Amino acid sequence: MAHSLPIITLLTDFGDQDGYAGVMKGVILTIAPHVRLVDISHQIKPQDIQQAAHILGSAYRYFPPHTIHLVVVDPGVGGQRRAIALETPRGRFVAPDNGVLTDVLLQEPSWQAVMLDKPDYWLPNPSYTFHGRDIFSPVAAHLANGVPLHRLGSPVDELILLEQPPLEVLPNAIRGQVVRIDRFGNALTNIMRLRWIDERTVEFQPLNPSLIPTGTLRFDARKARVTFGWHTLNGLHQTYSQVPVGQPTALIGSTDGLEIAVNQGNAADALAIKVRDTVALLFEPTGA
Amino acid sequence: MAHSLPIITLLTDFGDQDGYAGVMKGVILTIAPHVRLVDISHQIKPQDIQQAAHILGSAYRYFPPHTIHLVVVDPGVGGQRRAIALETPRGRFVAPDNGVLTDVLLQEPSWQAVMLDKPDYWLPNPSYTFHGRDIFSPVAAHLANGVPLHRLGSPVDELILLEQPPLEVLPNAIRGQVVRIDRFGNALTNIMRLRWIDERTVEFQPLNPSLIPTGTLRFDARKARVTFGWHTLNGLHQTYSQVPVGQPTALIGSTDGLEIAVNQGNAADALAIKVRDTVALLFEPTGA
Amino acid sequence: MAHSLPIITLLTDFGDQDGYAGVMKGVILTIAPHVRLVDISHQIKPQDIQQAAHILGSAYRYFPPHTIHLVVVDPGVGGQRRAIALETPRGRFVAPDNGVLTDVLLQEPSWQAVMLDKPDYWLPNPSYTFHGRDIFSPVAAHLANGVPLHRLGSPVDELILLEQPPLEVLPNAIRGQVVRIDRFGNALTNIMRLRWIDERTVEFQPLNPSLIPTGTLRFDARKARVTFGWHTLNGLHQTYSQVPVGQPTALIGSTDGLEIAVNQGNAADALAIKVRDTVALLFEPTGA
Repeated sequence: MAHSLPIITLLTDFGDQDGYAGVMKGVILTIAPHVRLVDISHQIKPQDIQQAAHILGSAYRYFPPHTIHLVVVDPGVGGQRRAIALETPRGRFVAPDNGVLTDVLLQEPSWQAVMLDKPDYWLPNPSYTFHGRDIFSPVAAHLANGVPLHRLGSPVDELILLEQPPLEVLPNAIRGQVVRIDRFGNALTNIMRLRWIDERTVEFQPLNPSLIPTGTLRFDARKARVTFGWHTLNGLHQTYSQVPVGQPTALIGSTDGLEIAVNQGNAADALAIKVRDTVALLFEPTGA
Repeated sequence: MAHSLPIITLLTDFGDQDGYAGVMKGVILTIAPHVRLVDISHQIKPQDIQQAAHILGSAYRYFPPHTIHLVVVDPGVGGQRRAIALETPRGRFVAPDNGVLTDVLLQEPSWQAVMLDKPDYWLPNPSYTFHGRDIFSPVAAHLANGVPLHRLGSPVDELILLEQPPLEVLPNAIRGQVVRIDRFGNALTNIMRLRWIDERTVEFQPLNPSLIPTGTLRFDARKARVTFGWHTLNGLHQTYSQVPVGQPTALIGSTDGLEIAVNQGNAADALAIKVRDTVALLFEPTGA
Repeated sequence: MAHSLPIITLLTDFGDQDGYAGVMKGVILTIAPHVRLVDISHQIKPQDIQQAAHILGSAYRYFPPHTIHLVVVDPGVGGQRRAIALETPRGRFVAPDNGVLTDVLLQEPSWQAVMLDKPDYWLPNPSYTFHGRDIFSPVAAHLANGVPLHRLGSPVDELILLEQPPLEVLPNAIRGQVVRIDRFGNALTNIMRLRWIDERTVEFQPLNPSLIPTGTLRFDARKARVTFGWHTLNGLHQTYSQVPVGQPTALIGSTDGLEIAVNQGNAADALAIKVRDTVALLFEPTGA
């Protein structure tokens, strides 16, 4: 076969005990029998739109661009919030319009979207409380079957964005927040877009340089410091094992963000770090 | 391809840490390489046949009718209980005969079944403690490959049904029980087969009208009351967000059952609801 | 289609909340769109190489031999440890060389391996902390696409093996350890390679008879005793339900190992059994 099978990913707060995600897959396979299904996560904290947005924003770019990402974290189900489908050059999305696509929209300047108002593409007699099954899944399946976006609903040109956690960029410091604690207890921050230029030098390249007065910054990783709570960590490392087992370290994580970890341990537990804690990265710029 | 690939769903109490479900998938794909595998849940509480029966009963109808549902919640493995395969117009099932198919059988008046007594369709030298791997998975795979039901075993005409939680229907009240707490803390009851006729009116249509003296009932949702423990909730709502965040609400859930929830909260925790608690729905009938 | 689709299984300590396993699947499907993906487990305790090795060793043989098992339990990521690909007659493996393949290597005398040192088969600019995404997944996908092993890296002829828990075989006793507690609270031991010859007789056949002075042993299961902590269990049983509900039992589990269980209960909780506890199987040999 020369072409790829269509892919639908699932990201929900449904957990894995009740069969809700399985039911969505049954609906999808009934309409689009040849689709590939991939779970991103069903363990989003119930109704935690921010966490889902962050995980989606780190994951979608690793899938083929024709992939359809079905996102159901939907505390407003059956109420006023709109249901939408979104197309971008690097992925398609079906979700409630409640901000859960924020981290995608921040990375995708070019997009088009519709609000899902064509019941022909839903299950008949949709329930009021499980649009994941009755609206979002069938719409994603029809998209996978080749139904064009504009057939699924009326165009919309504004989508809801979550308020972003504060990020302050100065010539010799970036101050942000912990935005997620992962399974390993690593604290991921919103100080993103860092990368290693060589073994000593890190570059920070703001997403929207026109809005950041400093522009691109470079600094010596060994002289950088990371502060949070009562803690200060000296130097940025490339990987966990550069410090002894059990020791804390600050490093640039796999999605180019500042991360606080403990080698083979749990930083969140050991250092009492929580989501929304302030984190500062202090450095001496060396010129870009 | 014009035809659908065969689908096998899995529903077990194996959890997701030990690889037991993965091993079953390996066995299936060895025998039936083109089957589609879909997890319904592996997080059934160990040996909780009732919970598995309930989840299966809510899920199977959303899959294509040729789907094979492989259910392994099997506290009696290796003992006296029979292993069976069941065919209905809306799904096929491979499971121990311990009641785990009760909620399917109650919805499917027409079925045929065999007890699995043909070792040709099992792995050689089956273990005494993991029939999921050695008997149920290979049988499901052979079914998916087109082996007809009657080849897999000897016909049986009676299957074990779990005792149903009490349900009492009066002209102005239905009294039942909480049968499951879901991931969100929503309390699902056995007061089922409710649906909205219009924005104010709810209809209750008993599964087997000849056994329910009242027959079909209609009532005004706004005047209905739901009582459980020390609590009374006034009115039935269509969705969670019709009450303020943090407030409890009674509504008709996505499988047409009476459900107690808290908007963006956890009703089971907030209201101390447990499985088997009595719940009553009180109303003034308006005539069907 | 006459041939089987390639299969890649995943075994990681990534959990199911962060989407890390989903991202790996996106990378794989981008390179090898037709591969079948099967999760073995993502719930390995963080960095618990021993647990992953044990689960992999029980699972891989149930998959078709062309299957590629992708194993990412990788506390040394980005450091000195090598990344490897391994081929055996009963499965292929992509993993860090940290011992996680020990239980495979002990069962597969014939193998070849390479260390992954060809960046052509990786994602560009691999991160230092997520080789699962940037190195292991693309390599597994290229293997699935038919790239031969020797193209992926330089040959290696020694791989790291975990130290094995002590196992002592005497003419009338085998002394070993609990190596894993499973989801049901069953305690699995390293006293393996036991099987029922008939309803009364059990045979122990050592993996490497030349190293075990006793050679093959047979004994009467009803007269055997299992001791651990302050407990003694009389007789080996075939399945859980041969003792009353709630009672402890010693039996031969589904991977031919001595197992301590409680019928419809949790042996680890009820009997306070932990990984690394000593367990002895005492018997009167009857001659092989």
